[in-house]
Amino acid sequence: MTGAQPIGIFDSGIGGLTIAHAINKMLPQEHLIYFGDTAHLPYGEKSSDAIKYYSIKISKFLIEQQCKMVVIACNTASAAAYETLLDFYDGKIIFVNVVDPLVDKVIQNGYERIGLIGTKATVNSQVYKNKIKSKVQKAQVEQLATPLLVPMIEEGYYKGQVSELIIKEYLDRPEFKNIEVMLLACTHYPLIKDYIIQFFDGNVEVMDSMDVTALEVQRILNEQNILNHKRQYANKFYVSDYTEGFDETAQMFYGKHIDLVTNSIW
Amino acid sequence: MTGAQPIGIFDSGIGGLTIAHAINKMLPQEHLIYFGDTAHLPYGEKSSDAIKYYSIKISKFLIEQQCKMVVIACNTASAAAYETLLDFYDGKIIFVNVVDPLVDKVIQNGYERIGLIGTKATVNSQVYKNKIKSKVQKAQVEQLATPLLVPMIEEGYYKGQVSELIIKEYLDRPEFKNIEVMLLACTHYPLIKDYIIQFFDGNVEVMDSMDVTALEVQRILNEQNILNHKRQYANKFYVSDYTEGFDETAQMFYGKHIDLVTNSIW
Repeated sequence: MTGAQPIGIFDSGIGGLTIAHAINKMLPQEHLIYFGDTAHLPYGEKSSDAIKYYSIKISKFLIEQQCKMVVIACNTASAAAYETLLDFYDGKIIFVNVVDPLVDKVIQNGYERIGLIGTKATVNSQVYKNKIKSKVQKAQVEQLATPLLVPMIEEGYYKGQVSELIIKEYLDRPEFKNIEVMLLACTHYPLIKDYIIQFFDGNVEVMDSMDVTALEVQRILNEQNILNHKRQYANKFYVSDYTEGFDETAQMFYGKHIDLVTNSIW
Repeated sequence: MTGAQPIGIFDSGIGGLTIAHAINKMLPQEHLIYFGDTAHLPYGEKSSDAIKYYSIKISKFLIEQQCKMVVIACNTASAAAYETLLDFYDGKIIFVNVVDPLVDKVIQNGYERIGLIGTKATVNSQVYKNKIKSKVQKAQVEQLATPLLVPMIEEGYYKGQVSELIIKEYLDRPEFKNIEVMLLACTHYPLIKDYIIQFFDGNVEVMDSMDVTALEVQRILNEQNILNHKRQYANKFYVSDYTEGFDETAQMFYGKHIDLVTNSIW
């Protein structure tokens, strides 16, 4: 591996662009290749087997693009497929998931009463709960699948009455009354972070995977001495199915204009 | 073709079970084979090319199962792929879509100020508007894509404050102030029909594709003399990806218990 090689990033769709954006902001010299599997989106409702299969196939594509690292920029895929990818590619390439950096940060900060919202697949996998409790046995993790939030955000309802009511519907529950921190275990949720902070009146810390994942990418590249010092190619953004709707949403998630290129690897 | 052969029915997921249920109710002697493409759900956000490709592939599977007819129980696929399927299979099998029966009924009833809600792909295809206006030139068709309704209904929010607010958000618009009829151009929406009737205070007729499609199936089978007189096999329900969530929702849409069988034809 050399520093000049690109970093591959993949997600079920466009939500992972929040992670790509955080990496680009922290490491602007790195050459990014993003793959959004819009043909199979949303992963949050798919079976674990299906998600593993998609993740292996996309990683193969990113490895063929000479990537030095693959970032699984999707909580659902990180939960369902990370171990499978490690096993399947057996040291061939570095994989970074979005779960471990957030778990480590929560533990570092000493939180013990922890809330979490995510997709059905992420919550059912128990991956956050198991990882946290394996390190801090007395930690309490209250999880809730919040499947309406992804479509709500993708449709632009991330402010106003509709989103406030849906957020309240999900968060106003007894199990979240006593938490110290709320984990946003889905790459879409940073877009409604302010509303969630507001819902808890600022009394609960609200954490997402964006910056902690970018920091982990930086740490590993630095440790392995494969940081890029000068980017030679433009970042590339692939999707497995293209619609104008995805295009609009992509700009919203990345925060600036990007060109989506259709590439059906199936 | 003989009457004993099954009727194939397909949809992007489980919403088409409302159509399957209407057919089963009207024609209980018919042997149904249902295919829900849950691996690619929702079609409403996919490109027209992707939907055509999936529809061809699924129809191939249903033809291999000896079906005498294929019902496209999905507005999005009916809009995007019906002509393609006719062309591709060139008279090999009878295709029934869910758009034409509803359009015919609206015209028969003499409506001219027409509202429509559906997925993005259905609305963007303009298929309802074009078909209605080709027959009744002065008809006015006001269409709106309402992408939050499918996930809302699938998550069980088809009653209560959340669904009322989302329905109001979509329907409380100037373009719908003067309509005589509202077309529910998505197989999920019958589950919230009562709320929509209520929103319009009973002043607007609300129509969906369920019964009109079942009647059209009956009419064609009768005309071609291939009605089934005694069903010999149990109805079969396939999905391309299985989760417990799909299973629960399937019971809700079909109205009684069914067994989903996983069958990845991809």
